[in-house]
Amino acid sequence: MVDFEPPLIACIVSEADYSFAALRATGECVIAIPAVELAEKVGKVGNSSGRDLDKFAAFGLTPMPATRVAPPLVAECFANLECKVTDTRLVKKYDLFVLEVLTAWTDPKQKQPKTIHHHGYGTFVVDGETIKLKSKMR
Amino acid sequence: MVDFEPPLIACIVSEADYSFAALRATGECVIAIPAVELAEKVGKVGNSSGRDLDKFAAFGLTPMPATRVAPPLVAECFANLECKVTDTRLVKKYDLFVLEVLTAWTDPKQKQPKTIHHHGYGTFVVDGETIKLKSKMR
Repeated sequence: MVDFEPPLIACIVSEADYSFAALRATGECVIAIPAVELAEKVGKVGNSSGRDLDKFAAFGLTPMPATRVAPPLVAECFANLECKVTDTRLVKKYDLFVLEVLTAWTDPKQKQPKTIHHHGYGTFVVDGETIKLKSKMR
Repeated sequence: MVDFEPPLIACIVSEADYSFAALRATGECVIAIPAVELAEKVGKVGNSSGRDLDKFAAFGLTPMPATRVAPPLVAECFANLECKVTDTRLVKKYDLFVLEVLTAWTDPKQKQPKTIHHHGYGTFVVDGETIKLKSKMR
């Protein structure tokens, strides 16, 4: 998370990945955010390349048209962010892209989805309980 | 997380924060990572400014000397990362600093610490269960 208005995200995409070439060539992407129920598919998606296969077909995922970018949304994900690349100054040195979120979708059928956080080598930590602390921000 | 060798982190520090001025002036910081047991203190630390008070004294935290940077570690945190600013190209536009981790400390007494992830406005999600998926990375 970089900023709120406009909503900006910084992300690292390895130069070795097919996604890197696609992002460089088109300047667009969809960030699709899976809940824990999709964890097994997430592992398979992460361990294969779009160079070699159609991941939607191979792993039973459903593409849906986006509204502001060419790549599709992933219907099974609880959130989908349509993004364009907005800053490439740190791409060469760090593979770091700054993206602007043009449109965001959430699936109203997935209430309180639990996300998964990769610790590396296939180990993920799943969201647990939610706590509320006093905050000065309203 | 930006890279492994050398270990690099990108982080946003609001220009309005005292930390921003300190990071700009010294080019150094410690990233201290609290477990959920410290959540209440995390809220207080986040809702006050080092301009106005000594947060260590005010919130009962213990400074410990770092080895490669001037600012102190936070003894109660399960991990402390001694960092130097290594790239400032995105500071002006996004408040985004790239940091190199020079030395990392963990507290061996805190086994499997649960981290907390801020969803905004004082709401945090605590780490839940850990799952293991097949991975091609070894």
